[in-house]
Amino acid sequence: MVEDPFGIRDGEVAIDLPEQFDAGVYFIGRIRTPWTRREDCPKNARESEAVCTVEIDRRYEAALAGVDSCSHLLVLYWMDRSRRDLVLQVPRHYGEQRGTFALRSPARPNPIALSAATLLGIAGNRLSVVGLDCLDGTPLVDIKPYFASTDAFPSAAVGWHKALKA
Amino acid sequence: MVEDPFGIRDGEVAIDLPEQFDAGVYFIGRIRTPWTRREDCPKNARESEAVCTVEIDRRYEAALAGVDSCSHLLVLYWMDRSRRDLVLQVPRHYGEQRGTFALRSPARPNPIALSAATLLGIAGNRLSVVGLDCLDGTPLVDIKPYFASTDAFPSAAVGWHKALKA
Repeated sequence: MVEDPFGIRDGEVAIDLPEQFDAGVYFIGRIRTPWTRREDCPKNARESEAVCTVEIDRRYEAALAGVDSCSHLLVLYWMDRSRRDLVLQVPRHYGEQRGTFALRSPARPNPIALSAATLLGIAGNRLSVVGLDCLDGTPLVDIKPYFASTDAFPSAAVGWHKALKA
Repeated sequence: MVEDPFGIRDGEVAIDLPEQFDAGVYFIGRIRTPWTRREDCPKNARESEAVCTVEIDRRYEAALAGVDSCSHLLVLYWMDRSRRDLVLQVPRHYGEQRGTFALRSPARPNPIALSAATLLGIAGNRLSVVGLDCLDGTPLVDIKPYFASTDAFPSAAVGWHKALKA
């Protein structure tokens, strides 16, 4: 049974969003993945070794110069199929109420997802990467080089998540 | 001498941006930092131990539930003081031409910055963090829990950057 992504569960709380946006986003490409249904997507990006393709619009292709020297990239994309007004959520696979900013759920005021992905190669305007978990066709909003010096915190902990596994 | 952030340097290439945005962003708060001029900001987020404050609009405050259990957060913000049409850039401190997607420069089609920050504490709608490098008053767009299991790649390398230091 497919759940309504715009539905609300017991324990979830929605707010009124502002009447206007403050800024605008361009979709700069699309992400090609093997997953066409939400329920097929890996629960997180390390769960799958599937090779995905990041397709940059030709307009921005020159901006890839030098990207091939990066082992890992931060890929930012737009999760346009979720509601944006939830402040408290009850993710199905945890079953507990938590704040949106303590979750990586696609439902958030600004549905920008990010994954650290391993770069396999680049051909023209297409990047082959491992480490994405989104639906096929997801709009791309940015690509950034991943710097271990500022981005890697191997000892970071998410207390609520650790407690679940303990 | 303060540079014009909207100026263009020799070797930089600008494109025509699309005529319309594809999606909208809400500013959900503001970041308070000690830096009020661009030239005072640290060049990257590990360069400073300054404590910064992330202020969430009251509207979204309930979404912080559980965030206090996170040691590190991904803080996403909007760098609204840079041009968005550069595909090739010549950052002042490197002096070499590179593609926008190989750089962490604020000038990019979607000026979304992200920093992995250390959480010191939360009081109401204010988070104290270390690890930001943006101007005082920068608009906040998202906060996410940092998961070492999916976000930390300590061996990641950025080839062009390594070559500079070698």
